Amino acid sequence: MKDLTVSKIGGNIAESPEKLEAFCKAFAAAPAPKILIHGGGVLASEIQKKFGMEPKMIDGRRVTDQETLKITVMAYAGWCNKHIVATLRKYGCNAIGLAGCDASVIKAPKRAPLNGTDYGFVGDVTPDCVDTVVLETLLSAGLVPVLCSIVHDGQGQLLNTNADTVASSVAAAMGAGLNCVFEHSGVLLDQNDPSSLLAELSYGQFKALQAEGKISGGMIPKLENGFKILAQGVPSVNIGKTKLKI
Amino acid sequence: MKDLTVSKIGGNIAESPEKLEAFCKAFAAAPAPKILIHGGGVLASEIQKKFGMEPKMIDGRRVTDQETLKITVMAYAGWCNKHIVATLRKYGCNAIGLAGCDASVIKAPKRAPLNGTDYGFVGDVTPDCVDTVVLETLLSAGLVPVLCSIVHDGQGQLLNTNADTVASSVAAAMGAGLNCVFEHSGVLLDQNDPSSLLAELSYGQFKALQAEGKISGGMIPKLENGFKILAQGVPSVNIGKTKLKI
Repeated sequence: MKDLTVSKIGGNIAESPEKLEAFCKAFAAAPAPKILIHGGGVLASEIQKKFGMEPKMIDGRRVTDQETLKITVMAYAGWCNKHIVATLRKYGCNAIGLAGCDASVIKAPKRAPLNGTDYGFVGDVTPDCVDTVVLETLLSAGLVPVLCSIVHDGQGQLLNTNADTVASSVAAAMGAGLNCVFEHSGVLLDQNDPSSLLAELSYGQFKALQAEGKISGGMIPKLENGFKILAQGVPSVNIGKTKLKI
Repeated sequence: MKDLTVSKIGGNIAESPEKLEAFCKAFAAAPAPKILIHGGGVLASEIQKKFGMEPKMIDGRRVTDQETLKITVMAYAGWCNKHIVATLRKYGCNAIGLAGCDASVIKAPKRAPLNGTDYGFVGDVTPDCVDTVVLETLLSAGLVPVLCSIVHDGQGQLLNTNADTVASSVAAAMGAGLNCVFEHSGVLLDQNDPSSLLAELSYGQFKALQAEGKISGGMIPKLENGFKILAQGVPSVNIGKTKLKI
């Protein structure tokens, strides 16, 4: 779809009332068509702890048993999604909140256990999982889809997924530009120095900086996803204010 | 909208996996256009207790402070809504889950404190609150709206409401027949005798049975709502297998 942008907000924005308010105001003012993607991991972990459970993560992915699934669905598709939608409505944005099961907008297979690790009720989302016709119908009706990273398998099973993967899959399937909005202004050479922001980043530079340990943690899958869909032909990928280039 | 039916399921169905499965199978097979309404009070109370909170009800209405609101949104719009939608999809029903904030399908004012009682973040839904154009757009696209009883005020505030009131308001606004599906087969003269089912019930009979104490509790607002919208001209109201008549 022409001029479509997909924005993804990180947990530190989605779950800070002040930052979310500022983001929603700016997002509502941005030109349509547009889609917003979010997760809700911070709230999910908070509820798990209140329930006396210990969140279990492997390489940044949440191991999701039946009780954890229920909690992630309540956090992502419940509070986070509806709170974002209600806030966007306040600023005049015609938002409609969705999980992947809604109108079957994202149907994905459950991840098979990998190298002896069973992630549980987790889905593997790829661009092929996205129903672009449904999204285009909603966008054409003047609606702004706000998608959380809960999907389904088409057989009645809800599945937890990663919001970065959902965002890059939706952008790739729709041929849309991707903007990842998160707590930093972009890719920084030094986490403690905002002036070290990179305006542009090539894949070669990324790999060199990763080898030097200057890019690490959650930024790595974010950049890997970004470069992957850029290579697949999406018009643009921005990680904060850093523009990725091939 | 011609031939539209609005069905409402009670908590005892929505929150029993076995009953919900059977209901979803039957609902998926029923002719479109159709809308489904549900709450999630049983799950909300369960989470409140896990959080060490005591659910506070006045005349069957939940007093909703900020923390309780978050829990009701997580329960109704999160787990219950997405679980129902995923189960309906399994049976081929093109369901789309919504809260009132989504596409602003139900925008309602916060209830003012009444006779010294402040219900908190609770909305007062009437037929005027329902955006019939949005619902018709979704129905015309072949979608089946599944609405939970969370609404918004248009100013960024989510509000908890009663699913019976939402169902009767949506039916009245859309000029649709209303089916209330719940744990009993219909209005029974004797709760312990399924053969005492009333095939029909007039308003006069209802008031006489209420005076005799044969109809009590949650059935009273359910029937009051039903007779009210029947008088407003909706084509039919069924409480289980009991057909209301003026």
